[in-house]
Amino acid sequence: MQKWTMTALGLFLGCALTVAASAREAGPLLVEKQSFTIEDFETQGGAVIPEMTLGWEAYGALDETKDNAILVTHFFSGTSHAAGRYSADDPAPGYWDAIIGPGKPLDTDRFYVISVDTPVNLNAHDPDVITTGPASINPETGEPWGMDFPILTIRDFVETQRSLLDSLGIETLHAVMGASMGALQAYEWAASYPERVDRLVPVIGSGWADAGLIAWLNIWAAPILLDPNWQDGAYYDGEPPLRGLAEALKIVTFHAQHPKWANATFGRAWADENADPAASFEHLFQVEAVLDAAGAARAAVSDANHFLYLAKANQLFYTGHAEGLYDGLMAIEAPTLIVHSNDDLVFPGNAVRETASLIRAGGAPVEVVELAGMRGHLDGVLNIDQAADQISAFLAE
Amino acid sequence: MQKWTMTALGLFLGCALTVAASAREAGPLLVEKQSFTIEDFETQGGAVIPEMTLGWEAYGALDETKDNAILVTHFFSGTSHAAGRYSADDPAPGYWDAIIGPGKPLDTDRFYVISVDTPVNLNAHDPDVITTGPASINPETGEPWGMDFPILTIRDFVETQRSLLDSLGIETLHAVMGASMGALQAYEWAASYPERVDRLVPVIGSGWADAGLIAWLNIWAAPILLDPNWQDGAYYDGEPPLRGLAEALKIVTFHAQHPKWANATFGRAWADENADPAASFEHLFQVEAVLDAAGAARAAVSDANHFLYLAKANQLFYTGHAEGLYDGLMAIEAPTLIVHSNDDLVFPGNAVRETASLIRAGGAPVEVVELAGMRGHLDGVLNIDQAADQISAFLAE
Repeated sequence: MQKWTMTALGLFLGCALTVAASAREAGPLLVEKQSFTIEDFETQGGAVIPEMTLGWEAYGALDETKDNAILVTHFFSGTSHAAGRYSADDPAPGYWDAIIGPGKPLDTDRFYVISVDTPVNLNAHDPDVITTGPASINPETGEPWGMDFPILTIRDFVETQRSLLDSLGIETLHAVMGASMGALQAYEWAASYPERVDRLVPVIGSGWADAGLIAWLNIWAAPILLDPNWQDGAYYDGEPPLRGLAEALKIVTFHAQHPKWANATFGRAWADENADPAASFEHLFQVEAVLDAAGAARAAVSDANHFLYLAKANQLFYTGHAEGLYDGLMAIEAPTLIVHSNDDLVFPGNAVRETASLIRAGGAPVEVVELAGMRGHLDGVLNIDQAADQISAFLAE
Repeated sequence: MQKWTMTALGLFLGCALTVAASAREAGPLLVEKQSFTIEDFETQGGAVIPEMTLGWEAYGALDETKDNAILVTHFFSGTSHAAGRYSADDPAPGYWDAIIGPGKPLDTDRFYVISVDTPVNLNAHDPDVITTGPASINPETGEPWGMDFPILTIRDFVETQRSLLDSLGIETLHAVMGASMGALQAYEWAASYPERVDRLVPVIGSGWADAGLIAWLNIWAAPILLDPNWQDGAYYDGEPPLRGLAEALKIVTFHAQHPKWANATFGRAWADENADPAASFEHLFQVEAVLDAAGAARAAVSDANHFLYLAKANQLFYTGHAEGLYDGLMAIEAPTLIVHSNDDLVFPGNAVRETASLIRAGGAPVEVVELAGMRGHLDGVLNIDQAADQISAFLAE
C-alpha cells in the first residue's frame, strides 16, 4: 500500500492522530477491558439468549455514593474503547479521548466514565472487543448462532447496560452520552429510565430512524447479501463474505463524511499517477482506492452478520419503542445537550432539530450545539472538542 | 405486487403521471425512433468501433436554413425519448414532455428538437432504445463485446451526436440542453464546439466530476461487481447479474431523490402491515420494498456492463477534457441558463454555483434558476416545468 493511502486511511479510520496530542499532554490514561455475562437475557422481541457476554471499560473512580457515573454509548462501528490506551505504547487512544480524561470535559478526576460493547458489535473479530451475536457460539447447539440469533433493538442494548450498572450498584447516571448509534441509546435511556438519567448528551443522532435512514441502512447492508460467501449467514465454517462486508463498510465510510472533505483531499487525483483511469477499469481515482482500502481494513476485524443485525436494530429504532412515534421523546425529563453538524448526511440537521423540538415540547430543557468542519457526520467523533466548553458547563450544572 | 407498491413505483420510475395532463392539453405528439450508424468511430482514447449504431428522435421540423435545432442530451438512466408518445395509446410520454411540444418552452412549432440515445446506453434491453456497447455484437468476433468494449467519455457521446447533426446538415444549434449526465454533454458541446452552440441549458449538473461524484459512482456500480453472475462482464451466454444490477439501480433511485420525499411518503410504514420488521429479516419497511421493486423493474431492461461504462464515463468527465480542469468551462462562449436544485445530492448546489462562476469568469453570461421540490436531483426531470418561463424567455432571446 502506498504511503498516501496509509495516511488517508488513518484519517478515515479514526481520530488517532487528531487526539493523540491532547492525550499526551495529560499523560496516558491506561485502561483495561473487562467483561460481564447476563444469563438468560430476554430480548424485547421475547427471545432468550442463554449467555450474553459483553466487554466494558471504565475511566476514573466510582465514588462512595455511586452518583458520579457517566455512561458513554458507542456508535455503529464503534466499541467501548471511548478513551485511554491499553498500554503505554498503544499507538491510538479511544475515539473520544479528546474529551474524556483527567481535566477534560468528562473529567475522570471527578466522574466515573463507563462504556459497554454492544451486543452484535460490528468488530466481533477485534481481540479487544467482547460481544455476543451471530458469530458467537450458541451454547444450546455448540455452533455459531448465525442468522438464528434473535433480532435485537437499541432498547436491548440499553438493557444490557442497565444490567451492568445494576451489578455495580449504580442507580442514577450523572449523564448518558453517545455519538450516532450511541445517541440513539442515550435517547432510549432517558425515555425508558427517566428517574435514572440526570443529563442527556446525544451527539450526531436524531430521535428516530426515518425513511431516509431506513433506506440508507438497507443500501449499506445490501453488498453483504450479494456476496456468494454470505450463504444466508452460515459462513462460519468457510470463507466469510469479506468482499461484501468491505463494500458495505466502504459505503458507511463515505456516507459518514461530507463530500466537501473528499473533494478537498482527493480532487480528481489518480490512485497511481502512471495509471490513467481512462485507460482501464482497473485504474482507479485516488478517492476510490482509499475507500476500497478503508473498507477492506475495517472488514478484517468485523463480522458481516453482526453488520446486518446492527443495521436492523438501527432501522427499528424510535425513542422509547412506545405506542406513538413521539411518545418516547416527550417522556424525556433530563436536561439535554444535543451536539450535531448541519453537514451530517446520516442524521440530517432538520431531523436533529425536530428531535430537539419534541423533547422541549415534553418539558425538558434542550440546548443545541452545531459543530463546524469538513467531515459531516464524523465531525461528531473527530471534532467533538469543538463542543468541549459546552459539554463541561452542561455536566457541571 | 401490492397496489401501494405500484403507485409508489410509478412515482419513482418517471414523470409519466405528472406530465400526462399537460401533454393531453396539447394533443399527443407522436414520435418515431430512428437510427444511424457511424462506421469506424474513433474514441477519445484512440480505439476504433467498427459500427456505432444509435437511436434518435426528433420533434418539430427542421427549417430550410437548418438553424432551428435544439439538441437534448439525456441523463444516466435516460434515453432519447425526451417527449411525445410512440402511439396514441402509449401510456407515458417522454421524460421532458412537460416542456417539449407545440406551444411549450421547447416549442415544436418553432424548433426542431432532436435527441440521441448515447452509446453504452443503460436501457440496452429496452426495445425502444438503440445503442452500441458491451452488450452489442463485435462485428470482428461475432460475439458480444463485454468488457472488451472501449472505454468511452462524455466527449465521445458528443462526437456521436455531432456525426448525426453533420449528416443532417445542421451546423449550428439554437441550444443544447440536458439534465444530469445530459448537462455534462451540454457543457462538453459548448466547450468543444463554441462556434456551433448558440445557447447552453445545463440542468442538475456541474462542470466536472469531483471526488464526491467519483466516489458515489463507484458505490453505485459496486453491487454489479459483487454479483457472481457478472463473470467479469462475460455473462451474455448465461444468467445476467440482475441482482447486482437491481441493487445498483436501487442506490441510484434513492440517491437521485431527497430523503425528505421518502420521509413524507413512507415514514416508518411497514411493507406489509401484518409483517413487523422487528420479527424477521424478511420483513421490510415500505421504503425498502419500494426501492427493491424500483431497482428490479429498471434492471429488467438494463445491462450491467453498460452501467459500468456509463459510471466510468461520468467519473472521467470534466468539461473540455482539456489540460486544466477549468479550461473547458472558461472556453464556453454561449449564453448559459443553469437550472438546478439546492437539495440535489448527486450534483450539490455549491458545485453547480462554482460551475456558473467559472463560465462567467470566461466571459459568457450565466443565469441560474433554482428549482424547489421534494425530489432533490430528480426535480430537474419531474419538476422542470417550474423553470418553463425562464427557459422560454432564454430560448427566445
